[in-house]
Amino acid sequence: MVHTIFEENFRRLRERAPHVHCITNYVTANDCANILLACGAYPVMADFWEEAEEITAGCDALVINLGTLNDNRLSAMIRAGKRANALRLPVLLDPVGVGASAYRLKAAFRLLEEIDFSVIRGNLSEIKTLYKGTGSSKGVDAAQEDGGTGTNQEEACFTAKELAGKTGAVIVLTGETDIIAEKERVFYLRNGHASMCKIAGTGCMLTAVIGAFCAVFPEEPLRAAIAGAAAMGISGEIAYEKIMERKEGTASLKIHLMDSISNMEDERLKERALLTKN
Amino acid sequence: MVHTIFEENFRRLRERAPHVHCITNYVTANDCANILLACGAYPVMADFWEEAEEITAGCDALVINLGTLNDNRLSAMIRAGKRANALRLPVLLDPVGVGASAYRLKAAFRLLEEIDFSVIRGNLSEIKTLYKGTGSSKGVDAAQEDGGTGTNQEEACFTAKELAGKTGAVIVLTGETDIIAEKERVFYLRNGHASMCKIAGTGCMLTAVIGAFCAVFPEEPLRAAIAGAAAMGISGEIAYEKIMERKEGTASLKIHLMDSISNMEDERLKERALLTKN
Amino acid sequence: MVHTIFEENFRRLRERAPHVHCITNYVTANDCANILLACGAYPVMADFWEEAEEITAGCDALVINLGTLNDNRLSAMIRAGKRANALRLPVLLDPVGVGASAYRLKAAFRLLEEIDFSVIRGNLSEIKTLYKGTGSSKGVDAAQEDGGTGTNQEEACFTAKELAGKTGAVIVLTGETDIIAEKERVFYLRNGHASMCKIAGTGCMLTAVIGAFCAVFPEEPLRAAIAGAAAMGISGEIAYEKIMERKEGTASLKIHLMDSISNMEDERLKERALLTKN
Repeated sequence: MVHTIFEENFRRLRERAPHVHCITNYVTANDCANILLACGAYPVMADFWEEAEEITAGCDALVINLGTLNDNRLSAMIRAGKRANALRLPVLLDPVGVGASAYRLKAAFRLLEEIDFSVIRGNLSEIKTLYKGTGSSKGVDAAQEDGGTGTNQEEACFTAKELAGKTGAVIVLTGETDIIAEKERVFYLRNGHASMCKIAGTGCMLTAVIGAFCAVFPEEPLRAAIAGAAAMGISGEIAYEKIMERKEGTASLKIHLMDSISNMEDERLKERALLTKN
Repeated sequence: MVHTIFEENFRRLRERAPHVHCITNYVTANDCANILLACGAYPVMADFWEEAEEITAGCDALVINLGTLNDNRLSAMIRAGKRANALRLPVLLDPVGVGASAYRLKAAFRLLEEIDFSVIRGNLSEIKTLYKGTGSSKGVDAAQEDGGTGTNQEEACFTAKELAGKTGAVIVLTGETDIIAEKERVFYLRNGHASMCKIAGTGCMLTAVIGAFCAVFPEEPLRAAIAGAAAMGISGEIAYEKIMERKEGTASLKIHLMDSISNMEDERLKERALLTKN
Repeated sequence: MVHTIFEENFRRLRERAPHVHCITNYVTANDCANILLACGAYPVMADFWEEAEEITAGCDALVINLGTLNDNRLSAMIRAGKRANALRLPVLLDPVGVGASAYRLKAAFRLLEEIDFSVIRGNLSEIKTLYKGTGSSKGVDAAQEDGGTGTNQEEACFTAKELAGKTGAVIVLTGETDIIAEKERVFYLRNGHASMCKIAGTGCMLTAVIGAFCAVFPEEPLRAAIAGAAAMGISGEIAYEKIMERKEGTASLKIHLMDSISNMEDERLKERALLTKN
């Protein structure tokens, strides 16, 4: 599988041009929309409860992101998620800052209870919080520290597998090494660059990209997760090389990352992906 | 008129520096604000019902955009729109994704009933939906397909003219060829590049730019629409040339587009605009 | 103090990597998040009343921004602000468009009454409105005119000092010359470039940056204000030089500004800052 997993991902995505409904925070919504277009998908951003179900029904996947959550958006998420489940459309969860408040944690558990997710993507704090049921991160973006060190990779791997078992979702735990886990098996992806933490919303964007791949591979969330994470990681590496060469900074890093995704090809993915199986 | 329509647009806009009130979606609000500044106008973004009328009364034009619509924002739109009508300020409508849900369609019809619009800008699906009164687009951004082919240009032209007749607004139907229609006459604008569909919010941005021109030419919505559409189209062409030359991608495309608008001059508009009258 | 004020600002900020909670508008939220990361801080964006206090309690500073204000966000601001005061965390106010509506003015006064601010940053209209208690700006961003001329610098200086006396906050009045005032003393900063007015949200971004410095110098709001304003001004100058050299426009200006902040060092700040004391 490792050998064929990188075949025909972008080609199919661009051919099918699926619609991805995002119910997401207002901080990175623009980046999520643009990265979906860069990948070859159409973003559909709508978060009002009264239209959420109908919008989802017209799309090919649903991405739920807990950033800047409030009760109105939560209500739209629940309705849209249930409808997506009924229609057998893939649903993804990005539990942004789930450990930062009791409110967000409660919302996340309600979502996990009422909706079946194909993929859950978060950093170590967020995934640990979902697994243990109590918050551990100081703030919404606090968890970079957790994921960055690599010292606690064993724990991360264990947590991801357990959460996969509990939820039935593929878990994507991003950090220095990305961990992509099902209940019984784990893949490690060693692409990306630490500087990507300096761009707001790389996590949100990755979840959206995986959503786009899920839309065209609805039965293969693992493949979608790996393809998405590899595309983001490799684009981050390319972007970092560019800003070093040109002595640029973090705003240019984001531009190059997005540019790179928009020019990404399956061949490059296959060539540069550093994927290993546990 | 075709000969003088490109005189003194940017010059006047930059001289007068009008205030444009946008009640708009959170996905592309930043881009709309920045493109208004790039044109020479001041963006005023405010969407709470309690202040909407007063804010509009202090501005020179109002742009209403249906992306990420909800009841709170709709209420602000209706109040602000009525006040703008009372003050004889131009009001523009961008019916983003109007065919994607019954809720949005109903909202659009309520707006059309209660407010007089100077300009309505949308893609083929959106304009068709407003004309026919039933949704046709799969998702919010689904309509690129419609506008891109050029095969149904006759239908597009007919629909635009009819909607212009029904509403009294100038209709800007964007696609491979932009159609700018009043009840009895139609202009075609062949600027722009297909790659612009890869940037989230080019439509929203165009409506904002037309709003800026309406603010300084309140009695000439047709001129404002043509100037705005030409400025965006030509900037898109310049931006596309740049990313090809430099092997960049879609994020750079947006940067170049915005840069180009900020440096646009009337002479260049006149030189490069591909405008024909039906 | 002028001599040591530029020592160790960025170094400490990047070492401590504080969390800055922003309750802010959706137009420039992404830019605020990215500039905080560029500085070395972690942005925490959350605006729902139910979690606002808890989020603030996990952070090192709170930035309140009145853009796209509504009652829900206002309620979060008041709760978070009070909690921050109780925890002795610095709280900053950006009174965006405070003169543009009675609603916003009333909200600002309620905030000033219930919360102690360390720093208030606005343009001349906004600061004048807060001082006089009545609106003077035509629209949200109208005040550039006020700050740009330099003819009314004496009045600006007086107003800033008086407001500082009234509120106990350091006042940062941005314009052609930035005025940074306490009750009894005033500093002038002559960095920056007029073209920065062409980027939406430079004011919001500056307030966020000052918030980051306040987070690591909670007892020195004056130092935080000067360091932040100097960093933004100098980055604006560098960015303007770049777009002139490369014949770029306003979108590139923003990219270069953000890049420059991400590469800013204390030595450069000290070297280029044009700070004088009254």
